Amino acid sequence: MAYTVVGKSVSRVDAIAKVTGKAKYTDDFPERDMLVGKILHSPYAHAIIKSIDVSLAKALPGVEAVLTYKDLPRINYATSLPGFVDDGIEEEFEADRLKYGTAGHPYSLDPGHRDVEDRHILTKKARFVGDNIAAVVATDELIAEKALKLIKVEYEVLEALTSTDAALKEGAPLIHEERERNILASGGYAIGDVEEAFKESDHVFEGEYETSIVQHCHMENQTSYAYQDSDGRIVIVTSTQIPQIVRRVVAQSLGLPWGRVRVIKPFVGGGFGNKQDVCIEPLNAAMTLAVGGRPVKIELSREESMVDTRTRHAFKFKIKTGINQDGKIIGIHITAVSNTGAYASHGHSIAGSAGGKFRYLYPTKALKYEPMTVYTNLPVAGAMRGYGCPQIFYAFESHLEDIAKRLNMDPIEIRRKNVVEVGYVDPVSKNKITSCGIRECIDKGKALIKWDEKKALYKEQSGDKVRGVGMACFSYASGTYPVALELAGARIVLNQDGSVQLQIGATDTGQGSDTVFGQMVAEVLGLPMDMVHVHSTQDTDITPFDTGCYASRQTYVSGMAVEKAALEVKAKILGFASSMTDIPADKLDLLDQKIVLKHSGESVLSLEQVAMQSYYDRVLAKPITSDISNNARINAIPFGVTFAEVEVDIKTGKIEVLEIFNVHDSGTIVNPQMAEGQVHGGVSMGIGYALSEQLLFDAVTGKPLNNNLLDYKLPTIMDTPDIGVAFVEAYEPTGPFGVKSLGEPPTITPAPAIRNAVLDATGVAFNRLPMNPQRVFEGFKNAGLI
Amino acid sequence: MAYTVVGKSVSRVDAIAKVTGKAKYTDDFPERDMLVGKILHSPYAHAIIKSIDVSLAKALPGVEAVLTYKDLPRINYATSLPGFVDDGIEEEFEADRLKYGTAGHPYSLDPGHRDVEDRHILTKKARFVGDNIAAVVATDELIAEKALKLIKVEYEVLEALTSTDAALKEGAPLIHEERERNILASGGYAIGDVEEAFKESDHVFEGEYETSIVQHCHMENQTSYAYQDSDGRIVIVTSTQIPQIVRRVVAQSLGLPWGRVRVIKPFVGGGFGNKQDVCIEPLNAAMTLAVGGRPVKIELSREESMVDTRTRHAFKFKIKTGINQDGKIIGIHITAVSNTGAYASHGHSIAGSAGGKFRYLYPTKALKYEPMTVYTNLPVAGAMRGYGCPQIFYAFESHLEDIAKRLNMDPIEIRRKNVVEVGYVDPVSKNKITSCGIRECIDKGKALIKWDEKKALYKEQSGDKVRGVGMACFSYASGTYPVALELAGARIVLNQDGSVQLQIGATDTGQGSDTVFGQMVAEVLGLPMDMVHVHSTQDTDITPFDTGCYASRQTYVSGMAVEKAALEVKAKILGFASSMTDIPADKLDLLDQKIVLKHSGESVLSLEQVAMQSYYDRVLAKPITSDISNNARINAIPFGVTFAEVEVDIKTGKIEVLEIFNVHDSGTIVNPQMAEGQVHGGVSMGIGYALSEQLLFDAVTGKPLNNNLLDYKLPTIMDTPDIGVAFVEAYEPTGPFGVKSLGEPPTITPAPAIRNAVLDATGVAFNRLPMNPQRVFEGFKNAGLI
Repeated sequence: MAYTVVGKSVSRVDAIAKVTGKAKYTDDFPERDMLVGKILHSPYAHAIIKSIDVSLAKALPGVEAVLTYKDLPRINYATSLPGFVDDGIEEEFEADRLKYGTAGHPYSLDPGHRDVEDRHILTKKARFVGDNIAAVVATDELIAEKALKLIKVEYEVLEALTSTDAALKEGAPLIHEERERNILASGGYAIGDVEEAFKESDHVFEGEYETSIVQHCHMENQTSYAYQDSDGRIVIVTSTQIPQIVRRVVAQSLGLPWGRVRVIKPFVGGGFGNKQDVCIEPLNAAMTLAVGGRPVKIELSREESMVDTRTRHAFKFKIKTGINQDGKIIGIHITAVSNTGAYASHGHSIAGSAGGKFRYLYPTKALKYEPMTVYTNLPVAGAMRGYGCPQIFYAFESHLEDIAKRLNMDPIEIRRKNVVEVGYVDPVSKNKITSCGIRECIDKGKALIKWDEKKALYKEQSGDKVRGVGMACFSYASGTYPVALELAGARIVLNQDGSVQLQIGATDTGQGSDTVFGQMVAEVLGLPMDMVHVHSTQDTDITPFDTGCYASRQTYVSGMAVEKAALEVKAKILGFASSMTDIPADKLDLLDQKIVLKHSGESVLSLEQVAMQSYYDRVLAKPITSDISNNARINAIPFGVTFAEVEVDIKTGKIEVLEIFNVHDSGTIVNPQMAEGQVHGGVSMGIGYALSEQLLFDAVTGKPLNNNLLDYKLPTIMDTPDIGVAFVEAYEPTGPFGVKSLGEPPTITPAPAIRNAVLDATGVAFNRLPMNPQRVFEGFKNAGLI
Repeated sequence: MAYTVVGKSVSRVDAIAKVTGKAKYTDDFPERDMLVGKILHSPYAHAIIKSIDVSLAKALPGVEAVLTYKDLPRINYATSLPGFVDDGIEEEFEADRLKYGTAGHPYSLDPGHRDVEDRHILTKKARFVGDNIAAVVATDELIAEKALKLIKVEYEVLEALTSTDAALKEGAPLIHEERERNILASGGYAIGDVEEAFKESDHVFEGEYETSIVQHCHMENQTSYAYQDSDGRIVIVTSTQIPQIVRRVVAQSLGLPWGRVRVIKPFVGGGFGNKQDVCIEPLNAAMTLAVGGRPVKIELSREESMVDTRTRHAFKFKIKTGINQDGKIIGIHITAVSNTGAYASHGHSIAGSAGGKFRYLYPTKALKYEPMTVYTNLPVAGAMRGYGCPQIFYAFESHLEDIAKRLNMDPIEIRRKNVVEVGYVDPVSKNKITSCGIRECIDKGKALIKWDEKKALYKEQSGDKVRGVGMACFSYASGTYPVALELAGARIVLNQDGSVQLQIGATDTGQGSDTVFGQMVAEVLGLPMDMVHVHSTQDTDITPFDTGCYASRQTYVSGMAVEKAALEVKAKILGFASSMTDIPADKLDLLDQKIVLKHSGESVLSLEQVAMQSYYDRVLAKPITSDISNNARINAIPFGVTFAEVEVDIKTGKIEVLEIFNVHDSGTIVNPQMAEGQVHGGVSMGIGYALSEQLLFDAVTGKPLNNNLLDYKLPTIMDTPDIGVAFVEAYEPTGPFGVKSLGEPPTITPAPAIRNAVLDATGVAFNRLPMNPQRVFEGFKNAGLI
């Protein structure tokens, strides 16, 4: 399809705002007399509070409120909006009262489909080092910090369960007392009979793979401020991916009617899934209620952000695969243990998503997926870019590589043999593959990295530094259908000069969706980009409802709403022009800000004339707007591949990525330059996941050992090669302008591609991430290379 | 009609916000690094700038920009958004370039119907003492003030025309060079043949009446701040009644596409018509462009607000009336000279409105209205509560009183003889009287003040203090139809808990319209008031279009949009409930937050259930909103009367108002307590107009003599009696819930009622306002009373 604006690398709508510093993030709004909220975190991974004394803290001048589990939530807020009344009664903690879930999923009318509610705003039982015990509201940060130190807590310390093995062992103490075991959930799916399939197969291979806990490390830490507005409702300005869900969860956490909470999202400095969770906002709302509605700000430090918000689930996989001699996979059996840490958050959904999105790549006769999500006394794992897929594709693409090696097959050929074709209908989700460019992606990547040349070149190597190439494929999804609601909204207002405002419920958290939506509107309405004024702020009171930024859903799902809204505006413009000219609307078109005759292209009216008339015609005036909601019940599967070339220093265990190419089939690419940027970020994240990143904890106490950006080894530009990006634009018929998702996919396969390249170079298979020098060195020692 | 919420004195939606200080006015938004803009005003009433030197001012540290007519507007902004580039060239002033009009009228597609464009942002020719000569932007107020003093201006001083007589005299210098005389406009209307009518009449009476220049004196002075937003557009936060018109006028003043300006209206502390004008915003926009888009605030002082914004037009009337012996008016001829000051602003519209709204009260066979609006070298007159009617009704109701006295008729009887009846169609506007309670208003007022008793009691009085009673009637309108566009918009969003947000383009500037609109929504949707979340902020980017707050239009005209939006939401709720139950929507109703069967009242679903399903049903979900525009082509005429009792101190000329009652037919009263407050304010304003208020100027130089609240005699609570209020709720079939306007009417007739009471008490007719002690004393001396 030929488009005018879609497919062009137009400048980001917020480019100038961001480079000049004019873009306002949550911390940039200077509320008058803003109070500061600080949190007292548990120093123990597993402990019960025996007593807590806040009297000294409360007495400190400048302290406006001190909150503990005793204060929250102790009023039934359900019928009227409260002030926060201190009645002097120290109520006992009631475990069953006003617990809430924090995962950024849309609400479900089906109680069985709702997120697990295992959380209080402040807790009487610490479940990880960093759990929220108490909070202080003070006039400045220094006083707040001092007050935290004046809170006296007596703990009864329990055994810290710092691994899933420990949590699952017989007789382990229960992290959540109401459960029988430390298991959040288990249960996956089975397609066909996998045991039968193994019997039919020429070969059956097994392998074990393990990933570590990593963290998002978005540039902007979690920050929010909250106050009671002039009408008594709670307003929260917050750096979030999911304003509508924050609104709901805050209301649930305090027992308020949802309409009494308003959430505003300004510019956001990255989220990567960590801001698809409601971490600080309920406490912030409680804080403002505790001080009569005055504004209170919470700004997490990097140390807090790294362990007191969310992390990526560490997984342990066991994979068994039945395969024929020709490389055709017959059956796969995967068991997975996922470590969700102290609270549920997204918990088992991550394991579910891994198994769900993995399924599209290599359809097999039989597939059994048995995941289990386990509570431990570690920080809470939640959503993170890829949502389980970096884990499962690392495992399976490593496993498949090992199989290819065992079968002496070309790694590319074994994948070609098994990848999906257009028309395939997934037996579980019923999602149909309506476009698929995976074969072209593989071809393109293979050519880009000069696979055959390098394979030949590296056949015979000697010396301490050896090189190799590897690759790995993935499938993903565009949104969550059919698992969850996919509602998106857009509103467009036509101005008198023919320009428009676009409000979208979807949130740009840095990835550039506002620009993409602006391009879609410009495309439909034939406008230059500077006549599409995109509102980058979402406000739950007025912005059309959208579930938010996650699941790589926005360009595809929210894009449907934007396209629909633009088409409605176009139809109204042509209708209005028809009422002005008596030319039937279907004989008219909108082109270059002109109403033209379809058959000749002859200009009939300017868009501005129609727009002016729509405001000022004494009889016909009716400003042109559209206020659209789109309930997507469809999904589109993107595909892609990473090719990597590495040089491994056998003596030091240091792996250097020499070249890396990601080739994506994400359907139409709306903005190539921004898409490339998206891939650069994702690949860089994948390289860190492969080689260096891991949150470390003391095995006995559960204390974090590297929750800061000095000790946590996030790759810098010095660790990152030039990242090669290419696209295969398989037109997706269900998507607006043929798009599929691109947000998360780039981060899925760098790790297995690098791992397979290392295997190619050294013959050593690393089945645990990260492949940091220490682990690689040990691997080589075990393999006898050194 | 029986309503549940409409007609009840519910609390203002902003009551708590305002008494706790949480309501944010323009000055309450603490932008970081806000610069201060200050204006250099002309010290001469009529002068040409021969030279202007800003070099010293520019050199002062902390001064960021100095602007004069040479800088503005010198870039053709029409195609791209500029920074403000100083190219070093001192361009000559071009009188024809980018002039603009400031009146708060909706734009008209008919060029002949647009406001006069006679203004530049900064001028080379001063036309009144206070005209805007130059402007400074500095880091603080003190530096800005200092810089103003460093600007050296050389003036060629011209004769100051400080009265309409002077401006009209042969050979008077021209205030606007492009005109042939100092006349802005003239021209009224004629119904029938008035000379013929005089011939048919038993009597013909003549009189002359004069009003003075007064000022609005709203609590919050004009304040705004402007900046370039992250997308380069100009944002202006301003205390205005008319955000959409400010947007347009700012764009026009700078030659920008209208869509590149965004105007936000927070809470407003009163306007009374003065904020129905675009006074400071164009200069503020120019200031921010001059400093690269940084925020700049303008905050006028009281002294500036009183003479550099707008005033009420002073009028001189000559009235000639033909009347029969029985009191039936046969013909009226009114000539009026209106003093509009230095610039057009609303200018002749005020004279037009006076003649237009007056016409509804006493229909006559013949009526000739000949107004003329004259430029003088005095501050600019614009819109002020009543928009010409306090002037014309003072004149005519005084004149009619004089006639009654001459005919020895009861003042009430002569009015009863002539007032309009339902069904009357105005021959000029074609507006039809569809409700009329003026007779009941008179009856009620007469009873309240105990007219007959007092008339009898005061027949024979002696001594220095004498008492009397007087009354006066008025008619008005609800909005401007058919003179101007009457477009209004509302958007409603239904939340998950069944509460709603209401966005209206109409602006609450203190009068309480937000509450009234909230009541309308609550009424239609059967909600308690605390479930209607009214947005008090208007934002031209997103709030549905509405022309603004003026002409007492909002409850009537904007109310239509609000009612329509609420009805649409109700229909969507019932439609959704129908889709959930398969019960036809027309068999359902919405009552007390329940969907009920119409025939039995039996509850079928809760509103919350429907609302939740509208968000989360996996198939049907479609959040319920309405986004409505209403183009009213109808008008409703409110009526009313003031009855006043005065005590006059003959020796001192001091008039004390002992009792005053305003009785209004404004159709249904949506909120009696707020309506009463509206009348209190209007009557108080009318008392000041009658007795004490007048802006004074030196007759030679045109310098203001009392532009401050010490010397300008605004009545205080010490000067104001208890104000009696009553309503006659003549149901208006064209209005939402039967309403007609009430905003401006209360201020129309206090002055003539007091004047007539003074006549009743003393026998002396005061035909010039204000009736301050000095003027009254002189009147008594001339009449031989002292």
